[in-house]
Amino acid sequence: MATAQARNTYLDKHQDRFIEQLLQWLAIPSISTLSEHKDDVNKAADWVSERLTAIGFPNAKTISTKRHPLVYAEWLAHNNQPTLLIYGHYDVQPVDPIDEWDSPPFQPTIRNGNIYCRGASDDKSQIMLVLAALEAWVKEDGALPINIKILLEGEEEAGGASIAEFVPKNPELLQADAVLICDTHMLHPKQPSLVTGLRGVLYTEIAVTGAKTDLHSGSYGGVAPNPIHALCILINRLKGEDGVIQIPELAAAIPIPSVAEKLFWQEDPLHIEAALKTEMGVTELVGETEYPPLERIGLRPTFEVHGIRGGFTGEGAKTVIPATAMAKVSLRLPADLDPNKVFTWLEKAVHHNMPTGYRVQLTNLHAGKGFSIQSDNHYIRAAAEALESIYGTAPVFMREGGSIPIASLFNEILKAPVVLMGFGLPDDTIHAPNEKFSLEQFNKGMKTVAEFLGRLTT
Amino acid sequence: MATAQARNTYLDKHQDRFIEQLLQWLAIPSISTLSEHKDDVNKAADWVSERLTAIGFPNAKTISTKRHPLVYAEWLAHNNQPTLLIYGHYDVQPVDPIDEWDSPPFQPTIRNGNIYCRGASDDKSQIMLVLAALEAWVKEDGALPINIKILLEGEEEAGGASIAEFVPKNPELLQADAVLICDTHMLHPKQPSLVTGLRGVLYTEIAVTGAKTDLHSGSYGGVAPNPIHALCILINRLKGEDGVIQIPELAAAIPIPSVAEKLFWQEDPLHIEAALKTEMGVTELVGETEYPPLERIGLRPTFEVHGIRGGFTGEGAKTVIPATAMAKVSLRLPADLDPNKVFTWLEKAVHHNMPTGYRVQLTNLHAGKGFSIQSDNHYIRAAAEALESIYGTAPVFMREGGSIPIASLFNEILKAPVVLMGFGLPDDTIHAPNEKFSLEQFNKGMKTVAEFLGRLTT
Repeated sequence: MATAQARNTYLDKHQDRFIEQLLQWLAIPSISTLSEHKDDVNKAADWVSERLTAIGFPNAKTISTKRHPLVYAEWLAHNNQPTLLIYGHYDVQPVDPIDEWDSPPFQPTIRNGNIYCRGASDDKSQIMLVLAALEAWVKEDGALPINIKILLEGEEEAGGASIAEFVPKNPELLQADAVLICDTHMLHPKQPSLVTGLRGVLYTEIAVTGAKTDLHSGSYGGVAPNPIHALCILINRLKGEDGVIQIPELAAAIPIPSVAEKLFWQEDPLHIEAALKTEMGVTELVGETEYPPLERIGLRPTFEVHGIRGGFTGEGAKTVIPATAMAKVSLRLPADLDPNKVFTWLEKAVHHNMPTGYRVQLTNLHAGKGFSIQSDNHYIRAAAEALESIYGTAPVFMREGGSIPIASLFNEILKAPVVLMGFGLPDDTIHAPNEKFSLEQFNKGMKTVAEFLGRLTT
Repeated sequence: MATAQARNTYLDKHQDRFIEQLLQWLAIPSISTLSEHKDDVNKAADWVSERLTAIGFPNAKTISTKRHPLVYAEWLAHNNQPTLLIYGHYDVQPVDPIDEWDSPPFQPTIRNGNIYCRGASDDKSQIMLVLAALEAWVKEDGALPINIKILLEGEEEAGGASIAEFVPKNPELLQADAVLICDTHMLHPKQPSLVTGLRGVLYTEIAVTGAKTDLHSGSYGGVAPNPIHALCILINRLKGEDGVIQIPELAAAIPIPSVAEKLFWQEDPLHIEAALKTEMGVTELVGETEYPPLERIGLRPTFEVHGIRGGFTGEGAKTVIPATAMAKVSLRLPADLDPNKVFTWLEKAVHHNMPTGYRVQLTNLHAGKGFSIQSDNHYIRAAAEALESIYGTAPVFMREGGSIPIASLFNEILKAPVVLMGFGLPDDTIHAPNEKFSLEQFNKGMKTVAEFLGRLTT
């Protein structure tokens, strides 16, 4: 076996080429929710499939689904070594508000030691650093140290229906001893972390209708239903300024944290609260004041309005009372709750709180179950050791506010422990303008993954 | 003097041509609030100026302003007759939501006895029926019966700043004994009405800012400011489901109606409440239940949200917490209140009710003073008699919910009584998709105006 030093030297020497390849991939606008980008999503799938072949994966391929293709590859050369399934997603979020990008969202640009591009942190760079680590093993050792399966999807930002259908149908193909997902972030550039809990998510569209047509406020104002107004009243009733979500069944289902977690959140030894304020550019945090901010982010459910639209929002003044209005809202949920059950609770709460005189319709756009990880297994320990060896600091275990529904599914179907080891940083502004990924994190990330693979050999 | 009969015969005979000309004018998309339609607004001004010349007005002309031109024409042939100033506006509202139009908004279409087009009722057809009445006098009598001045603006839907500047600077040019405005609607096709009160209006944009950038709800939800949410809370606090506007200074300034008005509103002898429900396609009315619906429409102030925008509203799901959100709101105001003073009250109420952790900014987009008319003068009586002679029913006097700020200005500067005699119908859906004007109203309207002019001679 070559030394870790040799692999790291290889990775340093070839980093510029990895980045060059990554920039090509980032330039493909693989936005999965927008149907006009379907071809781009296919192109991004083909690109990574070809890259896997180039590294040496025999039979790397794209697998058609009802929507966007999966990419699958495997390298099974060892009878006596464990098998690691690596997951990632090659699709990206939409780019609006486009005016707020400092460089065009699909023209990857390097400045201040970062790559700026939609998908830079979520998740293309993180897949690319894994591919670099695999290549280093192949080139320095002539082979991978363990068996590797790779499964990438193109619908993570669009509900993930195809992979959710594929995994339960193909447990033998995907059978593995552990799963690695590099799609999360660390607490701080100098503080690696491993995620031990992910919240579930329910994403819903609420459409409100009043009159049969738009009306003039001069003639009808004072007696006409105003769906924008009704939506505002509804949203305020579902969560007021105190941050408390008014869904009784959900309130009763919130888990109690461990004493150690609670202490970490209260004491905030890494000064995350201050960092959050800086990242957001605010002087105060909002939400439920009786819980520490870290508990609000990591454990408490959230209710957020992601978008709202109704009536006239162009230049100037138009005194219309619109016939319809809509909002997109999500709930982040305790790990063990079934989000489809929560949808029925939300529906009930919406109908209960809706002002009279309106029709309201809810659409369940996306329901992903949360996940909590037991951290006392060989694979998590190997990840922790790999992180410490590269960063010089032992990782902290943390719950993350985000949701990766597929993690829960892998655990359920494959009965394999999941390692959530991501290299994003809190200020990567994923899903927002000027998404970026740090070049230093890319360098440390590929070395950490290479180290991790070596530590899995028996 | 020719007989009224002769003029009416002329009007019937030439109606098809008037309509043909009107359709040409309607096809010009003279949307005054949208800068890309600046040329169309000019075109619509030129069109009506040429039409006035064709009827026989010497020196009909457009007058440049800082924004959209005024159109002015006069025919002053009688020393011993009164002078009537006729006002109208040739600009129109924007057209969105464009999907809800049954025929394209600027492709005027006649069906079911109506002309469908943006601007059909508000206000091009109403100007055109006045021009037809003037033409009938010229053709049948060789001259107009009284002195006529015509002043048309192209910014009525965009704040009306230019005419508001022009009128006080040109009191001699505009000097008149009375003012006629055909830009309102009647209660019912068989029930003519004259408007004796118009509410004022204040149109404001409220912009809310939270974090310095859009954020991912998975990472920041629970502690991040959400400007959409804050806006919903604010709007709900400014007016809840009970319909009561929470601006204390405004509540104290609401006028007390006369006993006769109150009785008319309570008894609703014309069954307007039922008609309103049918027009809106609703089974119940919303708003302040302690006041009759007609009082809510005609006298009470209103607070309406006309548009709201924030975050992601495209196809699919995007878990963004946006950095900004905005709403457009208006207040309809008691006739005698200064809307600019009300703006300071609104600002105070917004700052008082805004959740903490946000920056909020108000922009005063449009402030128009209301107006109440004394109905016991020669000109109003002549209008009432003209309406009765054509419709066979005496008109009712009513307050209208809408606002025509220029009416108040004419009254103040020219010291001349204003006659608000409009021929729109309640279901014309002005400012909304499928705006229309009834051909029968066009016919009766031009005859009524011709009759009215004859009754003004001394």
